[in-house]
Amino acid sequence: MNAAEAFLGAAPEATQRLAASRWEAGRMCEGSELVAEEVPVALAYNGITHAVMLASPLDLEDFALGFTLSERIVRQRRDVYDIEVEETARGIVVSLRIAAGAMARMKGARAARTGKTGCGLCGVESLEYFEREACLPEAPPAPAARFDPAALHRAMAAMAARQQLHHATGAVHAAAWADPEGRLDCVREDVGRHNALDKLVGSLARAGAEPPPGFAVVTSRASFEMVQKAARAGFGMLAAISAPTALAVRMAEEAGLTLAGFVRGGRHVVYSHPERMLA
Amino acid sequence: MNAAEAFLGAAPEATQRLAASRWEAGRMCEGSELVAEEVPVALAYNGITHAVMLASPLDLEDFALGFTLSERIVRQRRDVYDIEVEETARGIVVSLRIAAGAMARMKGARAARTGKTGCGLCGVESLEYFEREACLPEAPPAPAARFDPAALHRAMAAMAARQQLHHATGAVHAAAWADPEGRLDCVREDVGRHNALDKLVGSLARAGAEPPPGFAVVTSRASFEMVQKAARAGFGMLAAISAPTALAVRMAEEAGLTLAGFVRGGRHVVYSHPERMLA
Repeated sequence: MNAAEAFLGAAPEATQRLAASRWEAGRMCEGSELVAEEVPVALAYNGITHAVMLASPLDLEDFALGFTLSERIVRQRRDVYDIEVEETARGIVVSLRIAAGAMARMKGARAARTGKTGCGLCGVESLEYFEREACLPEAPPAPAARFDPAALHRAMAAMAARQQLHHATGAVHAAAWADPEGRLDCVREDVGRHNALDKLVGSLARAGAEPPPGFAVVTSRASFEMVQKAARAGFGMLAAISAPTALAVRMAEEAGLTLAGFVRGGRHVVYSHPERMLA
Repeated sequence: MNAAEAFLGAAPEATQRLAASRWEAGRMCEGSELVAEEVPVALAYNGITHAVMLASPLDLEDFALGFTLSERIVRQRRDVYDIEVEETARGIVVSLRIAAGAMARMKGARAARTGKTGCGLCGVESLEYFEREACLPEAPPAPAARFDPAALHRAMAAMAARQQLHHATGAVHAAAWADPEGRLDCVREDVGRHNALDKLVGSLARAGAEPPPGFAVVTSRASFEMVQKAARAGFGMLAAISAPTALAVRMAEEAGLTLAGFVRGGRHVVYSHPERMLA
């Protein structure tokens, strides 16, 4: 049994073999294809559903914890008492028990924002709200570590072999943690790039209050929300295989995060805090 | 002035030139990079904000109309009376005037779903709600047209030259409409693949109640939400350069949509309704 077969055997729920017609060299052949599963996941806090997300049914405890921290539903890992994953016929329910104080804040934030319809704010007010929520006054201070460009490329090069779901199905995202030498500690995959990063955040949070020395690597672009999640998790560097957006660069600059993009083929571009890169 | 310069001149708000350090051949060079802009866009209906989305500031009327149709805030284009795009210091407000009946339905749907906190439903109920909302009882009947595999590949091959923002910045998605011969009629770009498809839906809706003969092409994967948008817009085929998810395939099968994936290099895979492909 090779690694791919071992993965498929260990996580049968993550993929599905579907009938499909392959068109190749000018003709259609009937056959089947292995396709990544995508399931609705309801996240419920103290019995009340907060969101239904579409996700790959892998590492859902990591996902729930990461999402909860990234969205600042709780500020510290210890405010999540319990995470229970339950499969139902319609999808997956992840029930989290969180501290009463966090629950009260979540209710308060929603009540302030949510009127009877929509968010109850006019357009300009809602943009102000977005900006206030988006900024990072309480982001942990970014680590002082410096990063070796060679480690960056070692880490990105090592990703391919560790993306098992991607390997099996052709198109899912991964987020990983690399140690200062560029060795991958933890790889998380999902059909959504935000989910993959949340899974990584959750996985690291389960291991300790602070991320270990190293940096995050993602097989996707770096948009605003990706940078926001990385900064809130206290990462020092986010390295993406593809491009950032301008808003993501501005936020990384402000948050003290080193943002590297187009990390491939022995090249990369550093968009913020280049002082943290070893020459 | 070449096409790229013309695009940058015509849409200066879509990109930003930022200082960046490029690491190449073992050394770092200071310079600058052209990066895709990403802005918060508040969508307000009859004065009440419904959502704040992050999007590329291009074709925002198309985006607003497409989102409004995809999310079924209105069922028909004629229920949107007016769309006004206003730039503010904090982002963009798109104000839509919609029919009173549609507004009342939107308020009703929100009231039914939204309790004081969260969606007011338990996890299983919220998954039922998701399933009910996700299904397509009112999807328009899928067109009976049949598609030529060669046209599919002509359309995908033509995409590259038409992705101007992508060309300038390296990583944004596009959604386009191709006529039955595979000639591209309309190309829309965005930092988000869902937004790009919504822009295409909006652009087509502005031109007529039904999509013209042809099919949609996207430079991304085909997830559940992409298929949902395509089916609701009455498309007959969605062709994606990358993989679908299993949930997307099941929905396409149910909705009567032909879903093609991995459309590249003269090959593709048809995951649903292959009977619509010409042999």
